[in-house]
Amino acid sequence: MITVQQVLTVTTRGRGTLEITDSIRNIVRESGVGVGLAHVFVHHTSASLILCENADPTVRRDLETFMTRLAPDGASWLEHDDEGPDDMPAHIRTILTQSSLAIPVTAGRCALGVWQGIYLWEHRRAPHSRRITVTVQGHERLD
Amino acid sequence: MITVQQVLTVTTRGRGTLEITDSIRNIVRESGVGVGLAHVFVHHTSASLILCENADPTVRRDLETFMTRLAPDGASWLEHDDEGPDDMPAHIRTILTQSSLAIPVTAGRCALGVWQGIYLWEHRRAPHSRRITVTVQGHERLD
Amino acid sequence: MITVQQVLTVTTRGRGTLEITDSIRNIVRESGVGVGLAHVFVHHTSASLILCENADPTVRRDLETFMTRLAPDGASWLEHDDEGPDDMPAHIRTILTQSSLAIPVTAGRCALGVWQGIYLWEHRRAPHSRRITVTVQGHERLD
Repeated sequence: MITVQQVLTVTTRGRGTLEITDSIRNIVRESGVGVGLAHVFVHHTSASLILCENADPTVRRDLETFMTRLAPDGASWLEHDDEGPDDMPAHIRTILTQSSLAIPVTAGRCALGVWQGIYLWEHRRAPHSRRITVTVQGHERLD
Repeated sequence: MITVQQVLTVTTRGRGTLEITDSIRNIVRESGVGVGLAHVFVHHTSASLILCENADPTVRRDLETFMTRLAPDGASWLEHDDEGPDDMPAHIRTILTQSSLAIPVTAGRCALGVWQGIYLWEHRRAPHSRRITVTVQGHERLD
Repeated sequence: MITVQQVLTVTTRGRGTLEITDSIRNIVRESGVGVGLAHVFVHHTSASLILCENADPTVRRDLETFMTRLAPDGASWLEHDDEGPDDMPAHIRTILTQSSLAIPVTAGRCALGVWQGIYLWEHRRAPHSRRITVTVQGHERLD
C-alpha cells in the first residue's frame, strides 16, 4: 500500500461554491492508487467542503439562501464579529458542513456518484486563498 | 496492510432511516482487517449516512421532525424543485449530515459505541435504490 | 505502511467544548507515522467533534447560542426525553456536527491550519466520560 499527498491552493472570489472535482480526480489519477481512499482536507475554519449535486446551479444558490436564513450576517444574537458581520456565520457554516471529505478510489478513479461534485464553499464575503491537502491511500494500480 | 472494498445496494421505502449496521459489521469481519478503519460512502446527493442512537425509534422520528421544520418540502424560499417539493430539502439534509462515515476497526470488529447504529437516511419521498461503497483498510488480523 | 491505534478517555464538565488538540498531536507524534492520516472517533451519540477557531472563546459561545436557538432543550416538538429535556437536542447537535474527524499527517505532524483546534463537544448538561479512538495510518517517518 502507498500514501500520496499533495497540496492545492484555491483562490476564492468571496462567498460561494467553487467546483474542485477535476483537480481531485487528477490528483487521484496521478497518485497511482488503484483501490483505496482519497481524503480532501481544508485548513481553514471559515471555508468548508461539500459533496453536492453538480448539474443545476440553483441547488447551490438555494444552499446559500438556506444558510443565510439560518445564520444571517450581523445577527443580533452573535457576539464574535472581529472580522466583520460575516465572521461568525462563516464559522457556523463550516461547523455544519465538512472540513474534510473521503471518497473511495476504485479502479484507479475517484468513485463519485453521477451527480456528486466536490465543492469548496467559501463562507467569507471577501476573496481568500484556501489551502487544501489531498491524501490518497491504497493499493497501487496494476497497469 | 490491506485494502478491501465492497459495494452494497440498499432499496429504500421513501423518506426515513434504514439501519445498515449488521451489513457493515459483516463486511468488516469478512475483510480480514484486524486494526484499521472502515469507510462507508453513499454515492448520492439526496440520501446520507448518520451514526445515531439505536435503541429508541422516537430519536429518528424527532430527527425527521427537526429536518422538516428546518427545510420544509415546498418552502417558498427554495427555487430548485425539478423533481418535486422534496428535491431541494433532500439536498439540504444531505449537506447537513454525512455522505461518508469512518469507523475504527479494533480486534477485527467495527468499534462502534454501545448506542451507535449506522443508518442510511433516505431524504426523498419516493423509494430509491442507493449504492454504498465500503472500504476497509488496515493490518491483517492474526488468527 | 503502518496503523497505530490508541484510546483516549475524556471527562467532560457538562455541555460545552473541550480542546483536545494537544492530546491528538502527541498521539500522532508518538505513532511514528510521517505521511498519512489521523482519524479521531467519539463512541457516543450525544457528544461530537469539531474543528473550530482556536483563538477567541466567543466563537464557541456563539456556537452554543446557535445550537440552543436551533434545538432548544425541552422543545414542545420533541418526543424523545427519556434522559431529560437535553437528551434529544444532544442527539440533534451530534447529527449536525461530526462523530469523527480525519486530519492529514505531514512530516510527522498533525497538519492543522493555524486557527484550527480539535474540540470534543459535550451536548449533555451533566458531566460524562467520553471514549475516543485515534487511528493513525501512513508511511513510517524516516528520522
